[in-house]
Amino acid sequence: MTGYFDNAATTIPSQAALHTYEEVALAYPANPSSSHREGKRAARLLQDLREQTAALLKTNAEHITFTAGATEANDIVLSSLLWRRRAEQVVFSGIEHSSILEWSRLLTHTGWTVTSVDAPGGLVETAAIEAALHERTRLVSVLLVNNTLGTIQDVGAIAQAVRLYEREHNSQAIHLHCDATQALGKIAFNLTELGVDSASFSAHKFHGPRGVGILYNTRTNLEALSRAGGQEQGLRGGTENVPAIAAMVCALTEATERLDQHLAHVKSLNSVLRMRLKEVEILTPHEHSSPYILTISIPPLPSEVAERMLSDAGFCVSAGSACAHNARQKGAAGHHAMRLDKRLAESSIRISFSHHTTLHECEALADAILAIHRKHR
Amino acid sequence: MTGYFDNAATTIPSQAALHTYEEVALAYPANPSSSHREGKRAARLLQDLREQTAALLKTNAEHITFTAGATEANDIVLSSLLWRRRAEQVVFSGIEHSSILEWSRLLTHTGWTVTSVDAPGGLVETAAIEAALHERTRLVSVLLVNNTLGTIQDVGAIAQAVRLYEREHNSQAIHLHCDATQALGKIAFNLTELGVDSASFSAHKFHGPRGVGILYNTRTNLEALSRAGGQEQGLRGGTENVPAIAAMVCALTEATERLDQHLAHVKSLNSVLRMRLKEVEILTPHEHSSPYILTISIPPLPSEVAERMLSDAGFCVSAGSACAHNARQKGAAGHHAMRLDKRLAESSIRISFSHHTTLHECEALADAILAIHRKHR
Repeated sequence: MTGYFDNAATTIPSQAALHTYEEVALAYPANPSSSHREGKRAARLLQDLREQTAALLKTNAEHITFTAGATEANDIVLSSLLWRRRAEQVVFSGIEHSSILEWSRLLTHTGWTVTSVDAPGGLVETAAIEAALHERTRLVSVLLVNNTLGTIQDVGAIAQAVRLYEREHNSQAIHLHCDATQALGKIAFNLTELGVDSASFSAHKFHGPRGVGILYNTRTNLEALSRAGGQEQGLRGGTENVPAIAAMVCALTEATERLDQHLAHVKSLNSVLRMRLKEVEILTPHEHSSPYILTISIPPLPSEVAERMLSDAGFCVSAGSACAHNARQKGAAGHHAMRLDKRLAESSIRISFSHHTTLHECEALADAILAIHRKHR
Repeated sequence: MTGYFDNAATTIPSQAALHTYEEVALAYPANPSSSHREGKRAARLLQDLREQTAALLKTNAEHITFTAGATEANDIVLSSLLWRRRAEQVVFSGIEHSSILEWSRLLTHTGWTVTSVDAPGGLVETAAIEAALHERTRLVSVLLVNNTLGTIQDVGAIAQAVRLYEREHNSQAIHLHCDATQALGKIAFNLTELGVDSASFSAHKFHGPRGVGILYNTRTNLEALSRAGGQEQGLRGGTENVPAIAAMVCALTEATERLDQHLAHVKSLNSVLRMRLKEVEILTPHEHSSPYILTISIPPLPSEVAERMLSDAGFCVSAGSACAHNARQKGAAGHHAMRLDKRLAESSIRISFSHHTTLHECEALADAILAIHRKHR
């Protein structure tokens, strides 16, 4: 697959991760919830993996829950609200991933007030979050790296504002959740310093396998809708996917160890593209953005048409996020919250890199984009 | 791993399934929700896999939703009830898997009435289900093969009773759900003939990978709490785990093609154990049971002690189901609903087979059980 620039949708699993998957599937076949010798061996490995994950995230093992991915991690946090006796208020940034935004439907249905906060140019303003806080606010959700523009939110400042509000208004605790799926293994951050209560991650975004992810959580009041078999301290039911978890930890270890090296490589690719695409509108701001994502716009070509033309030329880019393709709103909600010019938004193309991406591929992509742009502007 | 008799908890993945996993992970790395060339290739494979799964289950592809496992498939069905404006009534067999039974908590919390129906000796009586039906009944859940005793429920007769009730009382539709996790790839059944509205399955119970399963559903009124990215027709969010789905379909194809051959082998092992263990209480009835599960009891030894002794001797058996180990009630609810003698229940040991199990292993296990039994009775 040459010219793959859709790494924000999914990355190819690393050889080491795939090798680990197979090795663990064969060497630890028992159910970690079984209490015989083989079950206990699998349970010990699972605990080791939890401790390794915690160390990589600079936190404690008891804050780590293994899930089926970031969507499920987000679901655990949001669905916890359904246990509450009173429906109150939640605050979502308007540029959350669809796996958060789609919760608006059920929450509204069950009497909750959902306040959406705009993010002009892709950046959530702390003051706008502050203005949305309310004595009935029970949860605030702001992602770390936006999946369409790549903008990095100032989650640390937002956390401070939320804590200040709690103190000054002597309010009940406000749960601060952060979907950090596009950040892990790509940019450096520290969950404790950010001051969030919970965060979600997906392995397949950092060259791990599909179907596995992490919920980081420091609060005791999260509760699954059903404890099922009681796995993962009752927060996530279902037989623990030990091979996939092991493969994820392998990929996360690789990504963490080589983070600086990969980041430098991707930064240089990003700069080259920005330079070569000077005559094209660049929607991703230069500051406060992950270099792994570069979103451009080539009006009047609709995103889907440009995506198809580039696909025919051998380049995989995205017209918005892959998840938004299925979602009813097709990313329109996010673009609206970003207050993007409609014409630019409708012609946006997301280019997303990995450490596998080469300079040669970037140069070829730039040529292809320019050719299309010049022909159709 | 010699002497592994805990295949109802999990099975070892087949070599072909593991091979398929790796092959698909490398050959179809794109996100099936991406609309570029590589995304479409992955989407076509996913659709092929859905059609293959439907053919193996003798149904149509539109009735197949790929999930993270049977627990999640059960969750989708049960959580759909939370969209209802009125909390009404559900009927659960008392011997459902914990991933169903644990829903009693939230349903009760949100105003639903949960009626539990006993299953004397491990078999749900159709008349008892009939007696529990009510004009406000919205859902009935009865598993196909019970995971602790292996008893096969007469789901077809229960479906007829439910449909008759609907007609005679001109009632709203009653959703009939069936967790068939311990049946698929092991005993023959036909979902259409059973007449259930939905059913759930988990790949790792038939030598497929962990973290992937199937929801069969013929009703249009199931609704996920959040559509997330809109994957799986909005019923199950999260990037589709194509490699694991492909590996599951591989394992299901193998299991289906060799079902009769594997069943004959396991039946003969089961008979040998029953004969060799004549002096021991056998809790699994001879009739109406899956030969893949044989539960015995050796009082006064507590299940956990016997399990540990057998584990020390190199045999992996289960004291109840693996899932129940974590669950708060540790299988006690199921035993109560089965109306098992408390003394027998507390000393029960579940032996579960796969086609890999050998006659030699069974003979050695019988000797080990008899030795323990004779020493401690």
